[in-house]
Amino acid sequence: MSETILLAHGSGGELSHELVRDLFARRFANPILDELGDAALFGVAGLSSGRLALTTDSYVVQPLFFPGGDIGKLAVCGTVNDLAVVGATPCHLSAGFILEEGLPLETLEQVVNSMAETACAAGVDIVTGDTKVVERGAADGLFINTAGVGLVPAGVHLTPANLRPGDRILINGSVGDHGMAVMMQREGLKFGSSLVSDCASLNELIAALLKAVPGAVRCMRDPTRGGLVTTLNEWADAGVGIAVEETAIPVREEVRAVCEILGLDPLYAANEGKVVVAVTPEAVDEALAVLQAHPLGREAAVIGQVTAEHPGRVALHTPLGTRRVIGMLVGAQLPRIC
Amino acid sequence: MSETILLAHGSGGELSHELVRDLFARRFANPILDELGDAALFGVAGLSSGRLALTTDSYVVQPLFFPGGDIGKLAVCGTVNDLAVVGATPCHLSAGFILEEGLPLETLEQVVNSMAETACAAGVDIVTGDTKVVERGAADGLFINTAGVGLVPAGVHLTPANLRPGDRILINGSVGDHGMAVMMQREGLKFGSSLVSDCASLNELIAALLKAVPGAVRCMRDPTRGGLVTTLNEWADAGVGIAVEETAIPVREEVRAVCEILGLDPLYAANEGKVVVAVTPEAVDEALAVLQAHPLGREAAVIGQVTAEHPGRVALHTPLGTRRVIGMLVGAQLPRIC
Repeated sequence: MSETILLAHGSGGELSHELVRDLFARRFANPILDELGDAALFGVAGLSSGRLALTTDSYVVQPLFFPGGDIGKLAVCGTVNDLAVVGATPCHLSAGFILEEGLPLETLEQVVNSMAETACAAGVDIVTGDTKVVERGAADGLFINTAGVGLVPAGVHLTPANLRPGDRILINGSVGDHGMAVMMQREGLKFGSSLVSDCASLNELIAALLKAVPGAVRCMRDPTRGGLVTTLNEWADAGVGIAVEETAIPVREEVRAVCEILGLDPLYAANEGKVVVAVTPEAVDEALAVLQAHPLGREAAVIGQVTAEHPGRVALHTPLGTRRVIGMLVGAQLPRIC
Repeated sequence: MSETILLAHGSGGELSHELVRDLFARRFANPILDELGDAALFGVAGLSSGRLALTTDSYVVQPLFFPGGDIGKLAVCGTVNDLAVVGATPCHLSAGFILEEGLPLETLEQVVNSMAETACAAGVDIVTGDTKVVERGAADGLFINTAGVGLVPAGVHLTPANLRPGDRILINGSVGDHGMAVMMQREGLKFGSSLVSDCASLNELIAALLKAVPGAVRCMRDPTRGGLVTTLNEWADAGVGIAVEETAIPVREEVRAVCEILGLDPLYAANEGKVVVAVTPEAVDEALAVLQAHPLGREAAVIGQVTAEHPGRVALHTPLGTRRVIGMLVGAQLPRIC
């Protein structure tokens, strides 16, 4: 391990995983944490059925406002989505603010309004919070932490350990929109384009899916930092192979264009309104239809499948008929993307 | 309101309350948040009795290490205590880290070890987490957010609205230890003294109290930022008067000395291992005995009572026989104390 913290430790890629595995998971070890899901799942005394889900994320995105969203919308959607992908119905959120002295109050008001609207639209309440202020220069404007509590119904156990060869992998739309929208804003790039972050709460979409194909969803994950490829690699770590078709993965032309200019790969770019879903082969058609019937899944696609071959690895099938292994993100592609 | 965020907005005093009341509570308004307790309380489907408690705090203390604790210990104790004072049994915590690029990994390891030890001692698990890294200069070393979930038994409803004239007010020991220990460390003051932060998890002490005098505890609060006086003013806001005896409030000689040098008032200084308790008059002797029987309550004292007089105000009775109103903290006494 490096002797100091690097930006790559926050990338969602290899160094992030190393930090979690070698430090946090080791020192905090307990059976609930050891699952390392998007949210922790546990029972409590008096809860007659199902389990509670608890998740947290801090948001340090820069700039605070970008096409399609802002740090406040992101802070609500991200935590709602982390609950939804473990099969939980999100209910209550906390919000912790770290403010830099001198932050315009108007900026904070805009962010808080955005959080309130986003929470209302997602059907969750922000029920508790905290505010700290640090002196000028000790933080960069505004950081937000949200934690969320949800309820997972009895019988719902979504985990990569469920994955079986033949399972199909779907995504609800194009990849890289959030990462590239933030980068365009940050770098002052103008395309006169319609490129906006996909930042959205997916709980309604996911609830519709779980209702339509009960028992057929193996696992889900929202491919945020580290992008689609990182999520697929996390799944492959459960001991299966994963094969995806490059041409099947939806990528917007604008995203491709920005990626080329910046030398980035959209498959590693962050998403904030996407969910990767693995379903049993029998359920794939219905799952796809349900996703496509929802406004947040119109461009949903089947992008690959779980294989018995190359366990632990993710293979990309290219249009040229070649196959290459796509590993987890190395280094820090896009710091402060969420 | 000021047009920009001031350090005083994070003080726990008047400006903090204004920000909560005029911005957060207004925009996020819902019946659970509106209670504005140390933790939010709510039921969930399937929970046969009692309520869940959710709380969050971000920690930005500077320096990261101080006599008696560090930011990690603080992050666990603070959230455990916010659950305990609403009568919840703390069970699960989340941990969100914001790291500055260049932070020595050894520093992070020390903090994480401290969190793990503190959580273990308090009987709680850290079950989920998140790490973000920002570039050099965009944060000050290390910030931590913890959120916590606990379970409040049926029949336990601790709120300042319960307060009645004649209720007695107790505290489990001396005030200002945390604030002055951090200030000594920050300012490089040396007294060759034994002054250490009181940072401690109070859930065991509080559980013993609730067991010993069931139904007699009206409300509790941990007097952190803004200190004892701020907590008492928050209680008086429920529409009662509060009278405290200056000579009854335990203050260490070292704390008095540092306060004098720095021009501060120990009654407004932060505590991290103290709880203010209001009990019915009949239960006061037993409550005091229970607190004093616990290692974290040896110096517990009855410091005052709830009055029908001067509703909304806190009066300090001085040894000279005078009485003065002590209001909420104005300005920023001690930034980044927790």
